[in-house]
Amino acid sequence: DVVPCYKLESLEKIKSAVDRTPFHVKYLEKKLKKKYAKEVRLLKKFLKFNGIYGAEAKVQGFSGYVCELLIIHYKGFLNLLKNALKWEPGMVIDLEKYYSKKDYRELRKRFRDQVLILIDPTDKHRNAAAALAPKNFFKFKKLAKEFLENPSLEFFKEKEEVALKEEEYLKQLRERETEILALKFSKPKVVDDVLYPQLRKFNERISNILKENEFIVINKDFFVGEKEVYCVYELEVWRLPRIQKRIGPNIFDLEGSKRFIEKYKKQAFVITVEKFNWVAEVERKFKHAKEKLKDSLEKPLEILLAKGIPNWIAKELSKGFELKAGSEVLDWLKDFEFAKFLRRFFEKEKLC
Amino acid sequence: DVVPCYKLESLEKIKSAVDRTPFHVKYLEKKLKKKYAKEVRLLKKFLKFNGIYGAEAKVQGFSGYVCELLIIHYKGFLNLLKNALKWEPGMVIDLEKYYSKKDYRELRKRFRDQVLILIDPTDKHRNAAAALAPKNFFKFKKLAKEFLENPSLEFFKEKEEVALKEEEYLKQLRERETEILALKFSKPKVVDDVLYPQLRKFNERISNILKENEFIVINKDFFVGEKEVYCVYELEVWRLPRIQKRIGPNIFDLEGSKRFIEKYKKQAFVITVEKFNWVAEVERKFKHAKEKLKDSLEKPLEILLAKGIPNWIAKELSKGFELKAGSEVLDWLKDFEFAKFLRRFFEKEKLC
Repeated sequence: DVVPCYKLESLEKIKSAVDRTPFHVKYLEKKLKKKYAKEVRLLKKFLKFNGIYGAEAKVQGFSGYVCELLIIHYKGFLNLLKNALKWEPGMVIDLEKYYSKKDYRELRKRFRDQVLILIDPTDKHRNAAAALAPKNFFKFKKLAKEFLENPSLEFFKEKEEVALKEEEYLKQLRERETEILALKFSKPKVVDDVLYPQLRKFNERISNILKENEFIVINKDFFVGEKEVYCVYELEVWRLPRIQKRIGPNIFDLEGSKRFIEKYKKQAFVITVEKFNWVAEVERKFKHAKEKLKDSLEKPLEILLAKGIPNWIAKELSKGFELKAGSEVLDWLKDFEFAKFLRRFFEKEKLC
Repeated sequence: DVVPCYKLESLEKIKSAVDRTPFHVKYLEKKLKKKYAKEVRLLKKFLKFNGIYGAEAKVQGFSGYVCELLIIHYKGFLNLLKNALKWEPGMVIDLEKYYSKKDYRELRKRFRDQVLILIDPTDKHRNAAAALAPKNFFKFKKLAKEFLENPSLEFFKEKEEVALKEEEYLKQLRERETEILALKFSKPKVVDDVLYPQLRKFNERISNILKENEFIVINKDFFVGEKEVYCVYELEVWRLPRIQKRIGPNIFDLEGSKRFIEKYKKQAFVITVEKFNWVAEVERKFKHAKEKLKDSLEKPLEILLAKGIPNWIAKELSKGFELKAGSEVLDWLKDFEFAKFLRRFFEKEKLC
């Protein structure tokens, strides 16, 4: 691809993220000795085939530039892996020694929540590895350990993924004794760097909506197919009894008490006081998580947006969606890419 | 009963709670006109037969002294009831006008969490109605309303309570779709003023122990029989799947992370990272709330005490207990007093 950028004298007046590139290139031309070129390619392949190459929102892994800096710093692929074994969250790598060790505490504060702090040699105020997700940091450490213990070409090859079979899906449900909810809707026509963060936020929101209704999600993930998006939720509480207990305001909150009593006076089986709070027992509207989720998503666009559903997803949902629970999900295993994703969903990568 | 007390010149040097009595008597002799004697007796009966007469821990209602003060203040039973309709939590009654209206804010702060602030005429720093539970405050208001709308001798008679029948119990379970856990143990040989607060604390503790294990109690109560104590819990979540998800420490908490990984490395199906936390999926030890509760209570005395079980109850439990769930509880309906209590448990008094 050809990407246009502004030409700058220094990074002080940066206008767009890609304006950094010429500075990075200049630095690398100077520092990246010829003999490291192969090492960099090795690292990139290693990361690529293990799903953690790239800083984009979809991957949240190691960018090309980060790979190059790591190879320069550790003088090669193998030595990088050996050192990665000792990495801990908050690890600082400062190639140009802009900072002394006693600044590290301060750096960790400035780059809070960033697992790997790789000071950009062309801009000492920037963490070149800011996009790396904690999970991928640990995944890299684990891959390094596995590779060093058992070096193999397999680490540099595409992993064969096998679609989850019907019996396997049912066995998972039977053995885990949990419930699965799966949602399908058309893929929003927007770039991955917008779509993926929105899907993460969406799943978080759905989890919370269910939790507000006492349904408990223990695992959630999504899969972006060619034309469709699937969101999958595993629940540990998905059926609830007819009786629902509503905890109301403190009895000393007179205004709130009035509103609570007004609201529940007609529909409640009983309104009483427990300790210092009003409580009401009402008939539960949604006894199964699927009913609740269906009701929450079957709303016009404005309502979805008001409920905190990210805009691109809200837009698609308002045009329609499908929702399945438990064995109903079997219908969708015909989509092999989804079935492969479902295997990953159940057979999670161990990081320890 | 004859209760000994210290004779004091003034309440400044009070040594025991009963030392107040002579001062109260002196005040009442002066203020309680003859014609009010009947009114006081009426009020006490009214409260007595509705279960809210007495300030002791078992009742948490209106003491005799409070009754007398209320009758003096409102000049009679009927006028008290009429005024009670307008009471709100934090209501201040100050017979001797020790305070001006602008002090009421301050009084409500000083007597925080006390629904009725009835300044003791013999000690302006004391709330004579401090023992009144919020629930009983509202119960009194409701009784007043009912009596004024439909005055009847029924308010001054013992209520006939009917034991809950087997079919009724099963119907409650079927219709509410909840689960009942019931615990029985020998009544500790200790006065009610110690036993009742301990039982309330115990039920709170049991609720929390279950909640820490993701079982959700929505109603709890206890019944003190002649020889036994019954504790009853109604649950909205009482069965959980085999898979249990444990949320571990933040990944930046290196010490905590090490401990978490060490603890779960062997038993976990998988250890991974979600956002910034370690998480582990393990096999759940107790899939039913009854199993969990049984395990928690089947412990030696020291352990029960360390877990926050109040001492008199811990002592009895360590000698043995019985625990039943759902239809198993039917066996205990032969104890009519317990069966009457169970009716009250399901058919709660409406306060609105």
